[in-house]
Amino acid sequence: MTPNIPSTTDSQKRVVIIGAGFGGLATAQKLAGNKNFQVVLIDKNNYHQFQPLFYQVATAGLEPSAISFPLRYAFHNAHNVHVRVTEVKKILPENKQIETGLGNIDYDFLVLGIGADTNFFGMKNIQERALPMKSVGEALGLRNRLLENFEKALVSDNEDERTGLMNIVVVGGGPTGVEVSGTLAEMKKHVLPNDYPELDFDLMQVHLVESGAELLGPMSKESQVKSKEYLEKLGVKVMLSTRVTDFDGTNVFLGDGSTIRTNNLVWAAGVRANTLEGINPEVLVRGGRIKVNSFNQIEGYDDIFAIGDVAFMTEEKYPNGHPQVAQPAIQQAKLLSKNLLKIIRNEPLKAFTYTDLGSMATVGRNLAVVDLPFWKFQGFFAWLTWMFVHLMAIVGVKNKLLIFINWLWNYVTYDQSLRLIIKTKGPKI
Amino acid sequence: MTPNIPSTTDSQKRVVIIGAGFGGLATAQKLAGNKNFQVVLIDKNNYHQFQPLFYQVATAGLEPSAISFPLRYAFHNAHNVHVRVTEVKKILPENKQIETGLGNIDYDFLVLGIGADTNFFGMKNIQERALPMKSVGEALGLRNRLLENFEKALVSDNEDERTGLMNIVVVGGGPTGVEVSGTLAEMKKHVLPNDYPELDFDLMQVHLVESGAELLGPMSKESQVKSKEYLEKLGVKVMLSTRVTDFDGTNVFLGDGSTIRTNNLVWAAGVRANTLEGINPEVLVRGGRIKVNSFNQIEGYDDIFAIGDVAFMTEEKYPNGHPQVAQPAIQQAKLLSKNLLKIIRNEPLKAFTYTDLGSMATVGRNLAVVDLPFWKFQGFFAWLTWMFVHLMAIVGVKNKLLIFINWLWNYVTYDQSLRLIIKTKGPKI
Repeated sequence: MTPNIPSTTDSQKRVVIIGAGFGGLATAQKLAGNKNFQVVLIDKNNYHQFQPLFYQVATAGLEPSAISFPLRYAFHNAHNVHVRVTEVKKILPENKQIETGLGNIDYDFLVLGIGADTNFFGMKNIQERALPMKSVGEALGLRNRLLENFEKALVSDNEDERTGLMNIVVVGGGPTGVEVSGTLAEMKKHVLPNDYPELDFDLMQVHLVESGAELLGPMSKESQVKSKEYLEKLGVKVMLSTRVTDFDGTNVFLGDGSTIRTNNLVWAAGVRANTLEGINPEVLVRGGRIKVNSFNQIEGYDDIFAIGDVAFMTEEKYPNGHPQVAQPAIQQAKLLSKNLLKIIRNEPLKAFTYTDLGSMATVGRNLAVVDLPFWKFQGFFAWLTWMFVHLMAIVGVKNKLLIFINWLWNYVTYDQSLRLIIKTKGPKI
Repeated sequence: MTPNIPSTTDSQKRVVIIGAGFGGLATAQKLAGNKNFQVVLIDKNNYHQFQPLFYQVATAGLEPSAISFPLRYAFHNAHNVHVRVTEVKKILPENKQIETGLGNIDYDFLVLGIGADTNFFGMKNIQERALPMKSVGEALGLRNRLLENFEKALVSDNEDERTGLMNIVVVGGGPTGVEVSGTLAEMKKHVLPNDYPELDFDLMQVHLVESGAELLGPMSKESQVKSKEYLEKLGVKVMLSTRVTDFDGTNVFLGDGSTIRTNNLVWAAGVRANTLEGINPEVLVRGGRIKVNSFNQIEGYDDIFAIGDVAFMTEEKYPNGHPQVAQPAIQQAKLLSKNLLKIIRNEPLKAFTYTDLGSMATVGRNLAVVDLPFWKFQGFFAWLTWMFVHLMAIVGVKNKLLIFINWLWNYVTYDQSLRLIIKTKGPKI
């Protein structure tokens, strides 16, 4: 095997981008067609994943394909962008190379957009048994598991077993935890009793466990209070200032010594930045993030950059780094693509400042909370805003169209009709 | 575990249906709401699969969910229908019971709609390495495999290896083989070169191998000739009167001793009816089908029925049984639901006669062949007819809508944008 990437011309610099998340994809898109650069975009998957909607795949509201966008399709018309689907094993800064599953690749500039993955905080039992939600594949795995457990509950002759199979504990009061627990509570109300008329849904309880004193930590007080109120109205049992300490597959153990009977532990409690061998460990800070300067350069290098979730950049307003969401990644990518051009032109670089466009979370049908910089609102109009913003952010006209139809359909019928347990089959060899 | 099915009332008979294909689903739908019957519908999957469009999932034209319909959703309003997702291990006619993964289930009437699976004709190497297409899961597996092999070709430094990864041999000149090879040839023309501009598509050849002297065996001479002409126009190498004898994973061996270099062998060469322990082996005939009388009763039983692909019923016009397609299954299901009522009313049963509504196959964009009983036509109008008929046959308004939009999109853009290698992930336990 060989990376099979054409040599750069004399007037071209090669930008190798690792990771096709929001930051990596935006960087490649900005450099696409720019003849000063050859771009090599590397990802484990052949598609970009739209993380904010993983929870809808997990709760059978959207098809995986609706929130996945093929990378090769995205760069059909960009002849200077080369997509390679492989794992990166190591970076070798002294050789200006990276080591991948396809062999070594030289770079002139290296951009790390390697993102973050689920943080289990070292709790091995939970890592082995809980259901994470940080990829389309994991979201599908969660969908299959929940449906399988309802099928099992239906044929169980033991009420304790049924309770465990039907109960769901979601850990983590960030947007993902709020959105998934709200949706599950709505499924309990409107969808699951139709699918399983033989089951007693009084047995089923959706819990949302958060170690902090409020939900949606970084959002406004209004949003924190309203989201809790909405969730409780939907029937979610919200447990604040509560820590999950262990999970044996049938019981979740809490910090106060009590337990909750469940086979379904959904883990959305935190993230840890991904890392790569070859990165100087001294630049790693809290949560595994990589310390960068205001040009996204990793400390000690002028040709290696980190952007998005994995990057730790401080500003006066953000002494603990930027929030690990899409906007900082996209904004950094846009500036970086300009700064790369400045570097080859020997012009002074522009420093990054984050423009907070606001944050939002949806709780359920007609319910959402939105914090804009100068306006905070909740309820039905917030929910419309949430949908509009996410629809616009999704890559691809067809994806937008299909998601819109799905949402409209779900809204009218109260039923997503995607409760399928589908597994890929075929020869192993 | 227990099947957890409520007891029947005194005035109710229990109909156990094994298999939710065209026949099983239609039988359950016809009996839904009929208070004379309690229906237990059993399938390995929690969804009905629309087999005629598996090839579109395999070639990234449709999402799995578009052609899969959740069984529980289909029977939301039918309180006399109980869906159970499990494997059936054995039938026990002497006890009027079946043995399932959930325990034994009693029946008054038993309907076998267990269908047919890929027939590898005893060739073990092929069974282990070829890509079948008889379930949504297998179609997804085929999609992933083909895309993975194109990714591999892109990073191969060896032309022979690239040839093997890009070449595709489809075996079987029935509708599935014709449809999948036609679609792959179109992808070679319009889609794949955009995804992989670095690859030389002169290396790629789509072969369609058929052991008979013509394609679409049971169809009219016009359809056979035209479909071959269409495929060849699209660039498919059609090889008639040619048998595949072996496959080592890199080369396909043909009956005349020659080989074709390919890693991708798509097997659509034939089917064999599924079987169940407990069925009297003496009633099994050619292709593993179960001999039934004109009321679909299995020889020797008056309370066990077989319908659809698995049933072998002869009529004067069909001395070799009915074709193993959707229509006989659906028509038999409709009559059977009426005959079951006649049985409990002690009325004479009505004998089945098959109404041939015609057959059709699509070859590619704007190209199809249609044989109606009194009219045979090919080309663009045939293609519109094919689409209309399949769209109408798909279960569910939402599925119809999504498939229509997908098809329209593909037609306008020449691009399905579903070339995703998605695999389910999650904890094993």
